[in-house]
Amino acid sequence: MTLAISAGDPQGIGPEIVVKALGDPRVRAAARYRLHADAEWMRGVASRAGVLPRWIEQTIAQGLGGAGVQGVREVTVVTPEEAWTAASGVPGPSAEGGRASLASVMGAIRDVQAGAAVGLVTAPISKESWHLAGEKHPGHTELLAESFASPKSAMLFVGPSLRVILATIHVPLRRVPEVLTPEVVERCIDLGYEACRMLGVESPRLAVAGLNPHAGEAGLFGHEDERLIEPAVRRAAQRGIAVRGPLPGDTVFLRASRGEFDLVVAMYHDQGLIPVKLLDRERAVNVTIGLHRGGEPVVRTSPAHGTAFDIAGRNAADPTSMIEALLLAARMAHRPSTDSASRASR
Amino acid sequence: MTLAISAGDPQGIGPEIVVKALGDPRVRAAARYRLHADAEWMRGVASRAGVLPRWIEQTIAQGLGGAGVQGVREVTVVTPEEAWTAASGVPGPSAEGGRASLASVMGAIRDVQAGAAVGLVTAPISKESWHLAGEKHPGHTELLAESFASPKSAMLFVGPSLRVILATIHVPLRRVPEVLTPEVVERCIDLGYEACRMLGVESPRLAVAGLNPHAGEAGLFGHEDERLIEPAVRRAAQRGIAVRGPLPGDTVFLRASRGEFDLVVAMYHDQGLIPVKLLDRERAVNVTIGLHRGGEPVVRTSPAHGTAFDIAGRNAADPTSMIEALLLAARMAHRPSTDSASRASR
Repeated sequence: MTLAISAGDPQGIGPEIVVKALGDPRVRAAARYRLHADAEWMRGVASRAGVLPRWIEQTIAQGLGGAGVQGVREVTVVTPEEAWTAASGVPGPSAEGGRASLASVMGAIRDVQAGAAVGLVTAPISKESWHLAGEKHPGHTELLAESFASPKSAMLFVGPSLRVILATIHVPLRRVPEVLTPEVVERCIDLGYEACRMLGVESPRLAVAGLNPHAGEAGLFGHEDERLIEPAVRRAAQRGIAVRGPLPGDTVFLRASRGEFDLVVAMYHDQGLIPVKLLDRERAVNVTIGLHRGGEPVVRTSPAHGTAFDIAGRNAADPTSMIEALLLAARMAHRPSTDSASRASR
Repeated sequence: MTLAISAGDPQGIGPEIVVKALGDPRVRAAARYRLHADAEWMRGVASRAGVLPRWIEQTIAQGLGGAGVQGVREVTVVTPEEAWTAASGVPGPSAEGGRASLASVMGAIRDVQAGAAVGLVTAPISKESWHLAGEKHPGHTELLAESFASPKSAMLFVGPSLRVILATIHVPLRRVPEVLTPEVVERCIDLGYEACRMLGVESPRLAVAGLNPHAGEAGLFGHEDERLIEPAVRRAAQRGIAVRGPLPGDTVFLRASRGEFDLVVAMYHDQGLIPVKLLDRERAVNVTIGLHRGGEPVVRTSPAHGTAFDIAGRNAADPTSMIEALLLAARMAHRPSTDSASRASR
């Protein structure tokens, strides 16, 4: 089983944590990997990190799955068509970093599209770099949704304490109530259910966080909770999914972390990410759920942190979240796809 | 030094946690107390909680500061003019509960207005009960702001890990970007500074959370962060306050909990309360900061949890947060009021 890896923004900590993670024995035992990055750049990163670069190098012209990829648990470094040109410069957002990280993730996407990998693990990119490079997608999640023609995918976070799926992601706060619909919320309930099943939870118990303070407190603080969330929860429950909500946002994550729920559907970015980052910190993994290729789920994970430009190039980056992301991708890809209750009844 | 206490909704856990907290030796040593509640009701609660009611009973007709209030650290139970009539019924929101809890807190407010108490500690009320009782204020904070002619007060949470002040409170999420202005944010910075000083922090370091995902990521996800928050931070910094922001909401609380900041200004209810409830749980105390009477600060604290109707009447309530609220109020009231840098320079 092969996973494709993108190295992220070359000016950030992405290449460093990838190299460090690929040195971890658990990671090497879990799958084979195709890493899309400039080989010379990666050798430099490995040297600075004090890691022996145990991999096979391949240029894109050699095509997919070249010699040496068979047989053992190994790593192939595939140099993207667009070579990395950001070799110099101060760490920070740049058009060069945007182009290099885009080339890297596009290579990983093509691996999956061509069947050379069953999923992909992406190191952090800078949204500002992508913007400077002229990319129209604000981030990985949106690019992947389009690349796999899976507009109904969603962003999920998995950690030891919490599993949280986001109903909206990179949307200004004022637009969140406009973007949310009962259909969006219901789809997230279904995707959350599917994710729990892929993660080995037999009978997932889900909670949906409210949008307004105290989940609206019976309409005193806005009506979106009864208008947008209640119908979605009711319909999903009628289809046999164990789901409750809207529950007050300020306590639902505590309840989930204590074991009352297997997953929480959060309405917007900070509502979901504040608890994930507080409780699970570097152990949290970002998962895109709902990507498909030919009817089969495509696994995609990434560390939950960013490029960390402030510590890039100093060999100070902690690869824990990247290691967790690689191990989680291997675990999700190994699970046989199951016919979930939500799918079966639709 | 005397603190006034309101007992909260009689159908909730308020009376029970008040009775239990008043049995705590640290609480009894910290101040004298005037509790506004129906004496017979409180005797019943004490009996069910297995607590010996060590207090002096007084009807409102006896006036403020009756016999026996002098000399020792003691508790006086003052029966409100409007007797509690919610003696029967299932725990839950009710007009009777709303009227009783309103009478209780109004008694405590009058104590402070008359100079019979330096501050007040309020047990949880049900906002729905207040609404059913025809009360126009959605909660304590708004009622207190009007009662003390202090429209510029704010809600603050204090726990062992975090201090968080809210720039908006009981506002539907869609209205948050409309209600926020640079003036509101700057005022919260000042109030947060004042609160830190009252809590004994000599040189407060403040952070302001961003409104949009990643604090707007340089305008990619909305412009409110640069338009509303940046000017407020700049002006407060120019007046000598150590404040940074807007910082991404999903990491600023983790940074504060690790000691990088003494207080975080949160933009809305769930943004501030999710981290407080996750990290500080039952030890978090709600503080209203910015209430004044005759130029002197009025201390007001309350537990950070709600009425907990689901466990009311079962002697199952944990008084920890009420105990912390009483101790914090006593501590804040004891501190001499200081001329803060923000005040001095205005």
